[in-house]
Amino acid sequence: MDKVRVAVVGATGMVGQRFVKLLENHSMFELVALTASPASVGKRYSEAAHWYVEGQMPEGVAEMKVSTDDPNWLKALGVEVAFTALPAEVALKVEPELAKAGINVLSDASTFRMEKDVPVLIPEVNPEHLKLLEVQRRRRGWRGCIITNPNCTTTVLVMSLKPLLDNFGVKRVIVSTMQAVSGAGWGGVPSMAIIDNVIPYIAKEEEKVEAESLKILGSLNQGEVKAANFKISASCHRVNVLDGHLEAVFVELGKAVEAVEVINAMKNFKGKPQELKLPTAPQQPIIVKDEPDRPQPRFDRYAGGGMSVAVGRVRRDPAIENGVKYVVLGHNTIRGAAGNSVLNAELLVKEGLL
Amino acid sequence: MDKVRVAVVGATGMVGQRFVKLLENHSMFELVALTASPASVGKRYSEAAHWYVEGQMPEGVAEMKVSTDDPNWLKALGVEVAFTALPAEVALKVEPELAKAGINVLSDASTFRMEKDVPVLIPEVNPEHLKLLEVQRRRRGWRGCIITNPNCTTTVLVMSLKPLLDNFGVKRVIVSTMQAVSGAGWGGVPSMAIIDNVIPYIAKEEEKVEAESLKILGSLNQGEVKAANFKISASCHRVNVLDGHLEAVFVELGKAVEAVEVINAMKNFKGKPQELKLPTAPQQPIIVKDEPDRPQPRFDRYAGGGMSVAVGRVRRDPAIENGVKYVVLGHNTIRGAAGNSVLNAELLVKEGLL
Amino acid sequence: MDKVRVAVVGATGMVGQRFVKLLENHSMFELVALTASPASVGKRYSEAAHWYVEGQMPEGVAEMKVSTDDPNWLKALGVEVAFTALPAEVALKVEPELAKAGINVLSDASTFRMEKDVPVLIPEVNPEHLKLLEVQRRRRGWRGCIITNPNCTTTVLVMSLKPLLDNFGVKRVIVSTMQAVSGAGWGGVPSMAIIDNVIPYIAKEEEKVEAESLKILGSLNQGEVKAANFKISASCHRVNVLDGHLEAVFVELGKAVEAVEVINAMKNFKGKPQELKLPTAPQQPIIVKDEPDRPQPRFDRYAGGGMSVAVGRVRRDPAIENGVKYVVLGHNTIRGAAGNSVLNAELLVKEGLL
Amino acid sequence: MDKVRVAVVGATGMVGQRFVKLLENHSMFELVALTASPASVGKRYSEAAHWYVEGQMPEGVAEMKVSTDDPNWLKALGVEVAFTALPAEVALKVEPELAKAGINVLSDASTFRMEKDVPVLIPEVNPEHLKLLEVQRRRRGWRGCIITNPNCTTTVLVMSLKPLLDNFGVKRVIVSTMQAVSGAGWGGVPSMAIIDNVIPYIAKEEEKVEAESLKILGSLNQGEVKAANFKISASCHRVNVLDGHLEAVFVELGKAVEAVEVINAMKNFKGKPQELKLPTAPQQPIIVKDEPDRPQPRFDRYAGGGMSVAVGRVRRDPAIENGVKYVVLGHNTIRGAAGNSVLNAELLVKEGLL
Repeated sequence: MDKVRVAVVGATGMVGQRFVKLLENHSMFELVALTASPASVGKRYSEAAHWYVEGQMPEGVAEMKVSTDDPNWLKALGVEVAFTALPAEVALKVEPELAKAGINVLSDASTFRMEKDVPVLIPEVNPEHLKLLEVQRRRRGWRGCIITNPNCTTTVLVMSLKPLLDNFGVKRVIVSTMQAVSGAGWGGVPSMAIIDNVIPYIAKEEEKVEAESLKILGSLNQGEVKAANFKISASCHRVNVLDGHLEAVFVELGKAVEAVEVINAMKNFKGKPQELKLPTAPQQPIIVKDEPDRPQPRFDRYAGGGMSVAVGRVRRDPAIENGVKYVVLGHNTIRGAAGNSVLNAELLVKEGLL
Repeated sequence: MDKVRVAVVGATGMVGQRFVKLLENHSMFELVALTASPASVGKRYSEAAHWYVEGQMPEGVAEMKVSTDDPNWLKALGVEVAFTALPAEVALKVEPELAKAGINVLSDASTFRMEKDVPVLIPEVNPEHLKLLEVQRRRRGWRGCIITNPNCTTTVLVMSLKPLLDNFGVKRVIVSTMQAVSGAGWGGVPSMAIIDNVIPYIAKEEEKVEAESLKILGSLNQGEVKAANFKISASCHRVNVLDGHLEAVFVELGKAVEAVEVINAMKNFKGKPQELKLPTAPQQPIIVKDEPDRPQPRFDRYAGGGMSVAVGRVRRDPAIENGVKYVVLGHNTIRGAAGNSVLNAELLVKEGLL
Repeated sequence: MDKVRVAVVGATGMVGQRFVKLLENHSMFELVALTASPASVGKRYSEAAHWYVEGQMPEGVAEMKVSTDDPNWLKALGVEVAFTALPAEVALKVEPELAKAGINVLSDASTFRMEKDVPVLIPEVNPEHLKLLEVQRRRRGWRGCIITNPNCTTTVLVMSLKPLLDNFGVKRVIVSTMQAVSGAGWGGVPSMAIIDNVIPYIAKEEEKVEAESLKILGSLNQGEVKAANFKISASCHRVNVLDGHLEAVFVELGKAVEAVEVINAMKNFKGKPQELKLPTAPQQPIIVKDEPDRPQPRFDRYAGGGMSVAVGRVRRDPAIENGVKYVVLGHNTIRGAAGNSVLNAELLVKEGLL
Repeated sequence: MDKVRVAVVGATGMVGQRFVKLLENHSMFELVALTASPASVGKRYSEAAHWYVEGQMPEGVAEMKVSTDDPNWLKALGVEVAFTALPAEVALKVEPELAKAGINVLSDASTFRMEKDVPVLIPEVNPEHLKLLEVQRRRRGWRGCIITNPNCTTTVLVMSLKPLLDNFGVKRVIVSTMQAVSGAGWGGVPSMAIIDNVIPYIAKEEEKVEAESLKILGSLNQGEVKAANFKISASCHRVNVLDGHLEAVFVELGKAVEAVEVINAMKNFKGKPQELKLPTAPQQPIIVKDEPDRPQPRFDRYAGGGMSVAVGRVRRDPAIENGVKYVVLGHNTIRGAAGNSVLNAELLVKEGLL
């Protein structure tokens, strides 16, 4: 099979770099274009990007020239899929242009997440939401499409909730996060702000987690997503960690269960990516740690190549009826961003939806 | 008035040092003895203690000789109050001996907290629990007594809950903590464990928070504390911060209130230490921050000289009936430990209970 | 005596805040104006500045309105001294305008440091360089003047070298620095750059240290500074520390001496500020630590209120003829910036040079 | 060829774990025994070791039982090579017993480094020192032997000096280090000691660097090493970094050279491991970085799989005749410890010296 030609749009930032890394030697995709803001256009990628990902910048890519995100140019290069890592206000303009030009946009921006005809997709959780594409393309007259990632914090949470919802029902979720500085981009959190400190506020984060979770876990109904029917509350905090969002989760389930049943439901959880053996799919979407003091960001963020979430400390909650509490960790720029987009694209290809 | 002669028992550790600092030039207390483990006995305090508190070691104290905690020796020095900062298993033996010898023990150890006749005291919250001393002294035949601090995490939480309980009633509390490394003592958290990391587990901490909070907020009934009648659940985590425990709190109140009512109740909260103008009492036990991203450990842990707790982000909780959520911060070795003990002792003196 | 009316120009940044703190309740100066960039003009200082200094923002100042740095406006307010904390390229335009208008500029910018008629002043080290003001005022036709601080790294180094130069002669200096992130301003060092890392490069820093040190330690000759006659080499590195530059120094002295002689020369070092009892002068410009592992930034940066430098580990150097090595630490935004400027201004007033 | 059977002695600590990782799927060695202190003997390795190395514990090893370091037991298992990671005082007893029993000890302890008949070996630098083994075995009557690593700081320095010595001569070396906390072992540096701090002292480190460097770079003469003839001075400091020692080096060369000549000498440097294509040998022992702000510990410590050192900022030194200065970085537990021992063992096998 010929590889699908892809572009990374907004390739120099931290999520952009993760895309570049994940697409190195990818069996289904060939990276043919890297775009960035005008100041970088024309430079070699190795000059334009301050590489921060573990390991070396992939060799072929270092020499590629950064181009503009002009849809015609990308079409001329044969690009069918664009992985975008753009600020929300830039995505607002760029992504519809790409979609209109027939390019399938796998977006990490928050801009279109809450649009009715746009899926917020985690392939293990709500692959059926891909049916929204038909609505989207018809309604907007696009040959391409926009599929978005959830916010990184949402992704980690929702992956851990899915098997609980399926097996026991979920009535209420309270989540308190400890988020890595990479979530704010390279310069987003000054060292002066976070050394010997915690910042108990991330703008708009809690609202995103609360709204997106209900959409992703909602059900399709006549071409629309009906939000899931449970209550959710988030409190979001930034801690002195490079990568990996850790979340303390308190859940009211639909019925009384033992901790071990929750653990088993999580361990047994698989989804379409595992079934279809998608290249970027981890063997286990949820890895349950046995040690009492895990998961920890530095030691567990690369579980499943950064595509699994790691859960630990599953225990009964003494304050909630049918309650359990646990901690869950996920890599915010892999599963929480670039990795999830790549997995989305793999599903799109396998399902014949390009 | 002559000053009351006091000792710091376990004076070389981090809480011990805080005692020494707080007792410098104290208007009611005169520090006459410093004790430590046998290896340090006979050394000058400046040799025995690795001073970590801000500012210099108080001058007079630097030259004091470290002594044993022998009750007879302390009595011979005229010690009436002992501030203890001992490991739980050491306190088990030492504290009753001191109390028996007629010394009033203000303890930071967890050992006796859950004993029926031992008050776990926060002077602004449950000063009436001092009535347990009568029971304690009678039952145990002691002339002295043991009064304990809560666990540092409990103290910070309970101070913020007290005005909510008094004004609106509390039905359920969920708390997720981000705790400083000093809580584990100088060598308690290796740098290898916490750089670029969070540890989502602190042994026995959640159990302490859950049990102690209900005892402190409980009511006296026939010489016993009847635990408060609400549900509580904690998830405790260690973060890369030197001092200051930050806690995300989700509360189900007894009735529907606006965030501003909660804020006002907290701002107006005063207790006996403020009324009696105790020397170590902060003007406001709870300081409510207006900025959206506060309190932060590095900037707010010294609020009220480390004796206030700082609250921020008070807002309605979308997932809990009559719910509010907020973050609260307190200095774990001042209000959370030594400072609270000193305030307890000041209350004891003012109430004529020595 | 009436207080001298002063302005802080560039008052919202980190050095600007230090000025504000140091001028609180100052016995010689009255702070009457705070200026900042146009975006902040008209705001209250408490709104315009993200306060990062220990303790609260001084009360009177919080309510002051931020103004422009227009010289006429400042003159109208009676300002005689302006403490400036401006970027080099802004200082280039603003500082001469202020000086021309008759205001004495105490500058923290590097812009004019190497001008022949501008003193780079550390009051304990080269107070006689104030004689350059006569040349400067005459040559430039200014009623005011510009006096600059050294670069923060230079200040710390030069203070430790002065007693060596005076007592033993200095032939060669090699210095390797470990500098705090505050030196780069609030957002200067992203947390992504410094967590679990060291950055072995600070733009133009080494050149500044090498050139400025020789100027400051040089001698006046016919209205010019003749650079000191020794060799100097610096290697500058940024480490994960908030405040406090630590420097490892290797010195070839003019003759063979024991470490203890070096220590005594440092301990006995006093200068004009101590002699004149200037308000901001520390009792001892150099504090020599006895402990084998000191000075350390977190514990020693506030030595002498941040106005002393702390030296430790003075020992013979096995690789250098007549060599000694030691480490020296200073607070980069107090003695290394705002504090030194305030001390400069105090000297200016006492010497009748306004 | 049959694989050589090896043991890791002191396998649970940080260097021990690095050995285990490096020996996974090794082409020349088969790991057949893991030893540790009595408290761990009999446990599975996965229980006994708190795994901190990146990635998972190798599967086969996790199930291995920890044994004692009894020489007879190890001989019975067919062990020919023991990689030891023992405290100095334990090595004093254990290592000679192993050597006497015919086992070749590749030691990371400092105990025997300065013994006249013991090579301190870096295979790229002084492979000819292996001739000392003949002296050692004869003199001590051992069938086995002891070969030691240098101290980790020494290794990094000496690798960068070797091509300078060979090409230009070296007369004087001054080195100021910024060392990672892992060098002190898991619990060696408390977080309370290093957050927002630098510790300018590491016990005995400077003496080791100074003495070992001269021995390693010395020449063999009648069965003894004649120390290299240059002067050397070190100042050693601990910084807030997990892994990777960074060193600022100032060198007086034997003749005047341009920086580019130094760079080329470093880039072209190869040694016996490269010539013999030893399995653990990096392609380039020294990697020279072009960027002005590199090498940095977090980004460059894994250069050459952690077996290369990375050099940057090579420039003329203005204070030293024929002087150059540069920074060099190496991974302290790979090239600075376990990796160098494994490379030593590979050389031993290839040279037929088992």
